[in-house]
Amino acid sequence: MLLLVKNKEDWSKVHSLSIGLLGLGTVGSGVVKVIENHQDKLIHQVGCPVKIKKVLVQDIEKEREVQVDSTMLTVDPAEVLLDPEIDIIVEVMGGVEETKKHLIQALQQKKHVVTANKDLMALYGPELLAAAANYQCDLFYEASVAGGIPILRSLVEGLASDRIAKMMGIVNGTTNFILTKMSKEGRSYDDVLTEAQRLGFAEANPAADVEGLDAARKMAILSTLGFSMEIKLDDVKVKGITEITGEDIRYGKQFGYTMKLIGYAHRDQDAVEVSVLPTLISNAHPLASVNDEYNAIYVYGEAVGETMFYGPGAGSLPTATAVVSDLVGVMKNMRLGVNGKSSVNPQYQKHLKSDDEIYSKYFIRFCIHDGVGVMTKVTSIFATYDVSLEKVLQHPLAEEKAEIILVTHRASRENFRTVMTELREVPAVVKIESVYRVEEGDTV
Amino acid sequence: MLLLVKNKEDWSKVHSLSIGLLGLGTVGSGVVKVIENHQDKLIHQVGCPVKIKKVLVQDIEKEREVQVDSTMLTVDPAEVLLDPEIDIIVEVMGGVEETKKHLIQALQQKKHVVTANKDLMALYGPELLAAAANYQCDLFYEASVAGGIPILRSLVEGLASDRIAKMMGIVNGTTNFILTKMSKEGRSYDDVLTEAQRLGFAEANPAADVEGLDAARKMAILSTLGFSMEIKLDDVKVKGITEITGEDIRYGKQFGYTMKLIGYAHRDQDAVEVSVLPTLISNAHPLASVNDEYNAIYVYGEAVGETMFYGPGAGSLPTATAVVSDLVGVMKNMRLGVNGKSSVNPQYQKHLKSDDEIYSKYFIRFCIHDGVGVMTKVTSIFATYDVSLEKVLQHPLAEEKAEIILVTHRASRENFRTVMTELREVPAVVKIESVYRVEEGDTV
Ligand SMILES: NC(=O)c1ccc[n+]([C@@H]2O[C@H](COP(=O)([O-])OP(=O)(O)OC[C@H]3O[C@@H](n4cnc5c(N)ncnc54)[C@H](OP(=O)(O)O)[C@@H]3O)[C@@H](O)[C@H]2O)c1
Ligand SMILES: NC(=O)c1ccc[n+]([C@@H]2O[C@H](COP(=O)([O-])OP(=O)(O)OC[C@H]3O[C@@H](n4cnc5c(N)ncnc54)[C@H](OP(=O)(O)O)[C@@H]3O)[C@@H](O)[C@H]2O)c1
Repeated sequence: MLLLVKNKEDWSKVHSLSIGLLGLGTVGSGVVKVIENHQDKLIHQVGCPVKIKKVLVQDIEKEREVQVDSTMLTVDPAEVLLDPEIDIIVEVMGGVEETKKHLIQALQQKKHVVTANKDLMALYGPELLAAAANYQCDLFYEASVAGGIPILRSLVEGLASDRIAKMMGIVNGTTNFILTKMSKEGRSYDDVLTEAQRLGFAEANPAADVEGLDAARKMAILSTLGFSMEIKLDDVKVKGITEITGEDIRYGKQFGYTMKLIGYAHRDQDAVEVSVLPTLISNAHPLASVNDEYNAIYVYGEAVGETMFYGPGAGSLPTATAVVSDLVGVMKNMRLGVNGKSSVNPQYQKHLKSDDEIYSKYFIRFCIHDGVGVMTKVTSIFATYDVSLEKVLQHPLAEEKAEIILVTHRASRENFRTVMTELREVPAVVKIESVYRVEEGDTV
Repeated sequence: MLLLVKNKEDWSKVHSLSIGLLGLGTVGSGVVKVIENHQDKLIHQVGCPVKIKKVLVQDIEKEREVQVDSTMLTVDPAEVLLDPEIDIIVEVMGGVEETKKHLIQALQQKKHVVTANKDLMALYGPELLAAAANYQCDLFYEASVAGGIPILRSLVEGLASDRIAKMMGIVNGTTNFILTKMSKEGRSYDDVLTEAQRLGFAEANPAADVEGLDAARKMAILSTLGFSMEIKLDDVKVKGITEITGEDIRYGKQFGYTMKLIGYAHRDQDAVEVSVLPTLISNAHPLASVNDEYNAIYVYGEAVGETMFYGPGAGSLPTATAVVSDLVGVMKNMRLGVNGKSSVNPQYQKHLKSDDEIYSKYFIRFCIHDGVGVMTKVTSIFATYDVSLEKVLQHPLAEEKAEIILVTHRASRENFRTVMTELREVPAVVKIESVYRVEEGDTV
């Protein structure tokens, strides 16, 4: 039969596995519920009952989503981190510096760690993974990227024999909810944001979401794993959705595109580019029909071709499911005595692409004084820098002005920037209204 | 450092791992290519080189997609299955009874097995998995369901802590290609089938695909794993796409639906229902926009909610990628000395739902003699059996006939059948043209 080991003792003598929970908010309460509701399935998979022993919170008196024996709650981290009976720490409290110290302390105590913390993993992932390997502990973080989508596991295992060339993700539910509403109902950004806040899809302070920072953290984690290179948060070029207007969305539609906040990671040998940018994506691309608060991650592998993983990006139970799947992974490893062997640290050197290595199509909307020779002047600037035009739309405005909407063919960012600089200097160009990345999904 | 064991010897003494390949056709050639092209990555993950040692084929002289040393080829199964140096058998030859014998023999020799064979796994999956467990061997079969989509792994690990209530899949690329073309280009079934055959998306004998059998095999494998119940091929209710007409697709569109061949598996406690049926699926459902030869599997978990996995369902390299990912899994387990512990045999008893337990919406198109009281008669039959109507469309035909198109609310299959029987007996009903399942995707 199975060889059951835990610290060289007989597994059958282990009456239950004990978990220390850091945090009992949205995700923490979900973890308590999933562990309670699936005790049977957990016992079947893990071989023994799974119990939460101690829970770190800020306020013991606070009313909670779940009933927890008040003696389990504590405000003293040491009571959880130093408890010798606790086997695994589940970190769902958030925060960065203090939380990092807690997790390092847990690992030093030979406790395995499961975390949902993208802020922490985006900043200190490689360092924490190295510490875990050093103490022969597991450190799993599936829930940090897209709550209910088992994407990290799929990257590591499912595509183990492939080389990933490109990943594109809708990895922030709040912004996708807002853009979907703006797109489908023709409403303004501010209007939809207020509704999203009322419905709980956006925070009172939505900055981290709408400015693209949350998505950037997830893209840093994803691309570090997918490309096996250390991609830092600072390596990710970021722009949020706050300046997107109804006009941009409408013109995009007219050309067959949908406006999405797209996390984009591309690798060509050691040269990489990672960004989070508002993007007009072709309606034919599977990401274009990912709506509302849903997330999806599109992966292009050299051998497998196009795959996409779709699901809820957040929420109490979806995120808790990912956390508990990681827990099951840790516990199976404990049973087999093989912890600390599955984490993969970045193995390749990276080189961040410079602007002359980054190619993309662009959408530009700008306003001109409509006079003789103006369009010729404008198009000649594009031609000078090898930026050819795929689609052109011009329509008259009041006071002899006109609005021009262009979609370019693929061009280097360097050339495109030069075009934009020169365009701004043309006296007849009144204002550059907006510029977006355009993604057809036809090129790797 | 890592504890490296293989049959209790030191792993570092193992110079390479040897694979015996059964079959060198579409998938087999892909496996050779992926192993060659990713030798670096494999060495990094597995710790030593991976070599194909022997290859079983039917015809040694045949011209091949890949260059293979002719001394490696053999037509004698024993040369592969009994070679003591071969650690792992990769079965990509197809076939059922003879192939099963080969794999049982391999397992008896303590060789691990990776297979892409859905016919075999749908018929003998549980038996083979039990044999593997008995001999402490791994038996992995990711590639048998949807070539490039790591769905089995996601079900087992990613959703480990959830209970799966429903799975819906577009799991046959040929039929999805045909239905997409019929839908988008308004062409007939026969016309598109001929094109699909020319392009290599359909076999010369397309029966297994277009009659739904291939999809049924995959749904049997998927639901056995997802529900942890032994679902046999005979348990799957199957209908293919050969009778679908342009009219049905057009009327479906008019009501906001897309015609797809949907594998459907639903579980409610121990009661299950598994089918493969042409289905009109709401355009709002993520499966509705899965086009061309792509596959996708939609999974509803009680905790995680809706997730979907999208990718290529077949093809040489995508399928080979799945095979090699399984290989990496086997080899990592060898390195850790934990083979034979990850296969999950069905643990729950099943009860197949009877017709009065199966609920669905239906689309019906039929032709009547348009006379006084006919519609009243027709609708009263539906009302008598509690089948209420959601959408009704009537339009006149020549010779005082009329065509009626109905979409019902959810009704039991039993009641719906009785309605259809009585409808056929109404003298004014000339012909029932078509009946389809309708899926909104709003109910679990
Ligand atoms: N919410 C989601 O859908 C989601 C999805 C994916 C990932 N995540 C990540 O999961 C983590 C938790 O998110 P959440 O939404 O559950 O947060 P939350 O609802 O604000 O809960 C945080 C919990 O941690 C406790 N806590 C916070 N700081 C603490 C401190 N310094 N000392 C002791 N206890 C402290 C709080 O205690 P009190 O209850 O006493 O205040 C609370 O119980 C974050 O890293 C987040 O990024 C969340
Ligand atoms: N094709 C796909 O995209 C795909 C996707 C998923 C799963 N699969 C599964 O993968 C398996 C292989 O499919 P395939 O498309 O690669 O088939 P294939 O192109 O027909 O190749 C079959 C190979 O097996 C050999 N073979 C067949 N029967 C044999 C026998 N009795 N003895 C010795 N050798 C035999 C053939 O030898 P010769 O070359 O000498 O004739 C050939 O090399 C099947 O189970 C299929 O269902 C295929």
